[in-house]
Amino acid sequence: VTRGAALHDELRRLVGDRGLAPVDDRRFWVDATESQGIEGTPAAVVLPADAEQVSAVVAWCHQHAVPIVPRGGGTGFAGGCVPTRGSIVLGLERMRIVHTFDPHLWRIKVDAGLTTAELRRLARENGLSFPPDPGAAEQSQIGGNIATDAGGPHALKYGTTGAWVMGVEAVLASGERIAAGGGVRKDVAGYDLTSLMTGSEGTLGIICAAWLRLIPAPEASRVVVVAYDDPAVGCAAVAEAIGSGLVLSALEFLDRGAITAAASFPFTLPTETGFLVIAEADGSVAEAEATVDEAAGILGKGAVLVHQPTTGAELTALWRWRDGVSGAVTAVRGGKVSDDIAVPVDRLAEAVAGTVAIGAEHCLEACSWGHAGDGNLHSTFLVDSRDKEQLERARRASSDLYDLALRLGGTISGEHGIGTLKRAYLDRQRSPQTLEAMRAIKRALDPDGTFNPGKSL
Amino acid sequence: VTRGAALHDELRRLVGDRGLAPVDDRRFWVDATESQGIEGTPAAVVLPADAEQVSAVVAWCHQHAVPIVPRGGGTGFAGGCVPTRGSIVLGLERMRIVHTFDPHLWRIKVDAGLTTAELRRLARENGLSFPPDPGAAEQSQIGGNIATDAGGPHALKYGTTGAWVMGVEAVLASGERIAAGGGVRKDVAGYDLTSLMTGSEGTLGIICAAWLRLIPAPEASRVVVVAYDDPAVGCAAVAEAIGSGLVLSALEFLDRGAITAAASFPFTLPTETGFLVIAEADGSVAEAEATVDEAAGILGKGAVLVHQPTTGAELTALWRWRDGVSGAVTAVRGGKVSDDIAVPVDRLAEAVAGTVAIGAEHCLEACSWGHAGDGNLHSTFLVDSRDKEQLERARRASSDLYDLALRLGGTISGEHGIGTLKRAYLDRQRSPQTLEAMRAIKRALDPDGTFNPGKSL
Repeated sequence: VTRGAALHDELRRLVGDRGLAPVDDRRFWVDATESQGIEGTPAAVVLPADAEQVSAVVAWCHQHAVPIVPRGGGTGFAGGCVPTRGSIVLGLERMRIVHTFDPHLWRIKVDAGLTTAELRRLARENGLSFPPDPGAAEQSQIGGNIATDAGGPHALKYGTTGAWVMGVEAVLASGERIAAGGGVRKDVAGYDLTSLMTGSEGTLGIICAAWLRLIPAPEASRVVVVAYDDPAVGCAAVAEAIGSGLVLSALEFLDRGAITAAASFPFTLPTETGFLVIAEADGSVAEAEATVDEAAGILGKGAVLVHQPTTGAELTALWRWRDGVSGAVTAVRGGKVSDDIAVPVDRLAEAVAGTVAIGAEHCLEACSWGHAGDGNLHSTFLVDSRDKEQLERARRASSDLYDLALRLGGTISGEHGIGTLKRAYLDRQRSPQTLEAMRAIKRALDPDGTFNPGKSL
Repeated sequence: VTRGAALHDELRRLVGDRGLAPVDDRRFWVDATESQGIEGTPAAVVLPADAEQVSAVVAWCHQHAVPIVPRGGGTGFAGGCVPTRGSIVLGLERMRIVHTFDPHLWRIKVDAGLTTAELRRLARENGLSFPPDPGAAEQSQIGGNIATDAGGPHALKYGTTGAWVMGVEAVLASGERIAAGGGVRKDVAGYDLTSLMTGSEGTLGIICAAWLRLIPAPEASRVVVVAYDDPAVGCAAVAEAIGSGLVLSALEFLDRGAITAAASFPFTLPTETGFLVIAEADGSVAEAEATVDEAAGILGKGAVLVHQPTTGAELTALWRWRDGVSGAVTAVRGGKVSDDIAVPVDRLAEAVAGTVAIGAEHCLEACSWGHAGDGNLHSTFLVDSRDKEQLERARRASSDLYDLALRLGGTISGEHGIGTLKRAYLDRQRSPQTLEAMRAIKRALDPDGTFNPGKSL
């Protein structure tokens, strides 16, 4: 195995001086699991300029048995891009070219390193929309979003990132480049390698570019914020709203702990607020208004506050606040073990109450927020990330949380993925036969385990 | 290899008398490629009662090196379920249980053998909708729809079948049963085996049951029919409608040949009609009307007829007629080589004209119709299916058609799949590296090639 200066010389030969980042740049040691004290030191950090360089690096690493940890914006919550011992980090951040943009065909082909915000801006400026909004839009990159099948509030109406990917260009472990799918809206020529790469957390290939579908931007969106004293009442209202057949573009919730942590709510809430719901509808102005009015009627039963923000400024402030909840919760104790389960919507109340109860059993403050309409909870245990004993307790709490999710008919990961954090628990959800089928695919595409060892499976 | 009576005795032991169909029932010899003279004789036909029997049959066949051809409704256009020599047909038609139906959670879990029509009826009766409508709804089955990722007119707004599948239960070549995905709306725990099975044409596993997403049924839909004398004008109008950002639920077309063949159009068309467009919008009554009015305005430029059917009876007749186009075209000469390419929407005119031109080069009458908004053409060469020389010419024409599709930036199959028909052409679209990745997956999941040999890859 080539190490240290020799390794850097070899890599420099492949990607040039600009393609090598300093190995002591801590930015490449972590992702959002930093808040629970997780980090790793890479043997090198390469930032290829294009797919050809990615291919060259991968081929070299494969030949020299150097594992590769692919990295997008580093905003993941599962440790998926945290370097493992002896691995090199391969970051896509220099690859940001827009290869093709056909607004009239509702499609775009971009490099993997383009940020979510840049993509959404481009679409918006052309009257279109790229609906997935997994958060951390200024940092997260399209390639990473695809590799994790990132979700977000608007997945309720529009699906997760994968629903918008028509094709990917990827580098396989051998260094060979493949093109899966492409620029047509329908294509069933061979296996759907695009979807297989989607959500595989960089363990099957490195996504270098993607063909994405866009849609005409909805004319308008309208929002209603509803507060409850009792979480059970709020959850019942959420289930009723879904059951009524209302098509909302987002249906978010925060429990009492999350509201308290994210204190800078853009307007005043009743002090008794124990559960908050934010419902959004989009479409034509008339449709968005009618839908949100109907939602307000259903959600308003038993509520202590029903408020419809009307100005653009109010709406911007609301969603900016929502995007900041995760960081605000982290700030409470300096760290958090943030989880991500999903359950059928009618089991939301049990999952919300269960999160707090599991926290209490492990003497940890706990809260949850997330995508109520998708039954997707970011159940979170607050910790001081320097306190190993607290972290250990939080991990035991997470383990109990996964059991709860599965007991309720749900999943141990709704949108954050498996990464390193949930790897030990995957066999609680997937049968040995199902896991073996996944492993067979991993062996078929990456027999030597070059890509992201110790992640996902 | 076990054959004849001995084979039947062994299979009878596994599936009982009711699970064995007569091997001379020609229904199991063909799919919709019968119109081009394609058929095959199976060694046996088994119709398992449940997933356990599927598993038992597969395990036995795997052990005895008997290939299996899985079969849904047999409505495919690529020969995907036509038996190959020495294979047994495994039909899912007896497996029709609705395992779970939660209308308030917008989800249903059904056996693979349930027909599209039954599923859609169930959803409709509960105020919901299962949007994919690949046609032949009374015959086609959910399992087959998933195995082919079946499309249809409403894929324009709602995506193909795969977009609605949350999970599948499948039997692998070993006979082992796996569950991929499940009943939650978001789930990223491990690789997306659900999408991998989707569109794999029964070559990776036999889908026994599926968790499907539903949506609240749109309140209304409205339609406008627009006729043109010049196909180029019609295609330009289609591209303009898409480019304008109108969100239509369907945008279909027929060229002159298809209109002539499908003569029983439910109302009178101007004699000069050379190109027909049917646009549909759905949503609230107001929204559907506004959208279709706007569509009529854009599509109406240069048209010889703009007609908005208003009564339910007129609409039903229109869609029934549309569903019958394929059969009507077959009837012209007793056979057809029906193809299925997709191109970017702005290349539709070239593909429509190219279809007729390629037909002419091979002295064949040719026409096309299909899903204009998705750039998806059913380009078709009319033949007498008993005339081998005509069939041979039609196959050469198809080959030219695939080259045209690829030259226009499209695919050799938009929604019909590869089956046996396009297998020899897949390498024109997919690179050797991409094909090898697909083959590696096939070898990983079905190393002995038990499932559907000679299909897809």
